Amino acid sequence: MKRYRESIVMYDLVRLREEFPVLSRCVYLDSASTSQTPRRAVEAMCTYFYEYAANHGRGAHHLARRTTEEYEKVRAQLAGFLEASPEQIVFSKNTTESVNMVARGFRWKRGDHVITTMLEHHANLLPWMMLRDKGVRVTVVPHENGYINPVTVAEAITPRTRLVAITHMPNVLGTVQPVEEIGKMAHERGVPILVDGAQSVGHLPVDVTHIDYLAIPGHKGLLGPQGTGALYMKDPDSLECCLYGGGMVEHVSLTEVKLLPPPAKFEPGTPNIPGVIGLGPAIGLVEELGVDLIHRHEKKLGTRMCRGLSGIAGVSVYSPEGTGVVSFGVENREPNGFARALDDLDGICVRSGMHCAEPLTSSFDCRGTIRASVGCYTTAEEVDRLIAGVQALTGDRS
Amino acid sequence: MKRYRESIVMYDLVRLREEFPVLSRCVYLDSASTSQTPRRAVEAMCTYFYEYAANHGRGAHHLARRTTEEYEKVRAQLAGFLEASPEQIVFSKNTTESVNMVARGFRWKRGDHVITTMLEHHANLLPWMMLRDKGVRVTVVPHENGYINPVTVAEAITPRTRLVAITHMPNVLGTVQPVEEIGKMAHERGVPILVDGAQSVGHLPVDVTHIDYLAIPGHKGLLGPQGTGALYMKDPDSLECCLYGGGMVEHVSLTEVKLLPPPAKFEPGTPNIPGVIGLGPAIGLVEELGVDLIHRHEKKLGTRMCRGLSGIAGVSVYSPEGTGVVSFGVENREPNGFARALDDLDGICVRSGMHCAEPLTSSFDCRGTIRASVGCYTTAEEVDRLIAGVQALTGDRS
Repeated sequence: MKRYRESIVMYDLVRLREEFPVLSRCVYLDSASTSQTPRRAVEAMCTYFYEYAANHGRGAHHLARRTTEEYEKVRAQLAGFLEASPEQIVFSKNTTESVNMVARGFRWKRGDHVITTMLEHHANLLPWMMLRDKGVRVTVVPHENGYINPVTVAEAITPRTRLVAITHMPNVLGTVQPVEEIGKMAHERGVPILVDGAQSVGHLPVDVTHIDYLAIPGHKGLLGPQGTGALYMKDPDSLECCLYGGGMVEHVSLTEVKLLPPPAKFEPGTPNIPGVIGLGPAIGLVEELGVDLIHRHEKKLGTRMCRGLSGIAGVSVYSPEGTGVVSFGVENREPNGFARALDDLDGICVRSGMHCAEPLTSSFDCRGTIRASVGCYTTAEEVDRLIAGVQALTGDRS
Repeated sequence: MKRYRESIVMYDLVRLREEFPVLSRCVYLDSASTSQTPRRAVEAMCTYFYEYAANHGRGAHHLARRTTEEYEKVRAQLAGFLEASPEQIVFSKNTTESVNMVARGFRWKRGDHVITTMLEHHANLLPWMMLRDKGVRVTVVPHENGYINPVTVAEAITPRTRLVAITHMPNVLGTVQPVEEIGKMAHERGVPILVDGAQSVGHLPVDVTHIDYLAIPGHKGLLGPQGTGALYMKDPDSLECCLYGGGMVEHVSLTEVKLLPPPAKFEPGTPNIPGVIGLGPAIGLVEELGVDLIHRHEKKLGTRMCRGLSGIAGVSVYSPEGTGVVSFGVENREPNGFARALDDLDGICVRSGMHCAEPLTSSFDCRGTIRASVGCYTTAEEVDRLIAGVQALTGDRS
């Protein structure tokens, strides 16, 4: 189990926010969609572009060697962050690609079975649903007030179940799922588990002991640039490649292809080198702050947000607990219009709509929800501005 | 047919090179692997990160709206550059992904047939070779002194041929292939054509009239950041999606998926927003210089390089014409060691090895080749430094 730095000293928010210039321009409460990227990450990208930009390639010229070194350093850093090995980490363009790599990487047979849940983002639902074309049966287990009961998952497992695919924290509700318990249970039954870490990695401690595949966004809890992501694989040899091209082979003739070992075989073509190089210092910042402290900070803000919004007449809060992601609806108000009004009123940036999780979201309101989400850099004052904004727009005078 | 600006005035190289700080640090002759990225592109990325970074999403808050606007502006710009429509352009992470999107996007049947060539980079060879598992037959047509003869391709076409996949300019030799003629001939026979534009887009005029799929790198001739690429599709409805996730659907229930029209359906998940935003001004610079002038400039340098290298005792130049990409070998010298020696001698950055085109490269020398490649920013003096370096290392005194 990953041991996160325990500390009772909160980090310095004022100093932290200097890393994120956009924050001074608005009330940014859309971190579940994408985090802001710290200056140190942008500066690392600039240094790359201005001082040593080149393509990958050990043994080539000095620019390529430095590029390769810096790129691989980030792989090792992310592996260390997860207490994994570098060869277990493949960089992808986003969490969606990471999940699809698993859906595409299995050799499916007719009659195979996958279990997923009603809490999923489309990225962890559609790739499985599309397997139905190949004769794969997909069970979507229901949630209980925003949580998946491990017993429900256990009961859904059959001798043909090849994977349990579950979110760690649904992007609509922010409820932390018992993925360790589910992973342990699945492993006891010989079934691997994929965890969609889109909302958890960097936001709360993630222990990969009982996780076989972890889909990781670079641009959310890890604070990296958009266009980065990763897939952790406990056994990198358990997957076939999805893309074929240069940089992944040891030898090719017209009749034979001998692939390089992981992770190279999963990363053909020129990767997002500046993005990954920017991701390094971003993860460094997360490590500096400490995931445990980030989690406590975000939880505190989420609780404040849930309480504040719940107290407003006509507002229904759908998220049952105060993590950093809170969905709500306003009586007789269309979510998109309301979100726009918050922006117009006080530059409050929230998402609205289906949040790419239509089966779940539409169960609350077929027009969608309004979602506010915090990051490590969010302040209590920003949360209060949201609450005040909702009050003002609903005419609530309490 | 795209009409490129005709001009006899050469562009100002000194001023141009100020856009690329790395160029003052070495003799960069590795543009076929990746171009350097101009300041204006890096600055656009910084502006994005520091002023309005957000995720995609029309109708959401002002940051997301601006992000979406800037991102889509680049799609329109690239479409304009190719005289195509924005819905014909899908952004990808690299050329490799673009080619794989086509290989994965067809519904292949046993007995289908694909024609590719001996000149290909692995990115336009392996995706087709891997289809053999699905019962697809692959013909690899031979080259004639670095060129594909349209007649050879025509003769390989059968009633089961579903695609001709050919490079516009092989990354090992730099020979411009008659893709227009091949495309016209294939179309007359009802066969679509995919062109690997890795070495051509931005380097020489590309006319998509007779091209069905054009795989485009963002980080080569278009001067954009690594991690960007695109696929032009004449008929975007001819392909199925490869990845499934958020942002690509109009409606999802547990039994039904209704996809959005192209290009949205091909771009699930958070894209490389900063990369694409950086690509915009980079394409702008290419347009400003003019592709015809870039082509003339690079051809001039390539001819100078071919002539200079051919005159050195013990050097074999494999590239039959002087475009911007020149492969050569040095008698009794291992290519990687020789490339390294050029770097140590005078900071000359060239590639060496198989260049991810093993069937072709190994036909010249089973240890690989040394490859020097120029960009729009390369000077004659840099080419001369390469020639002088090769002379010095071979002990040639002519």
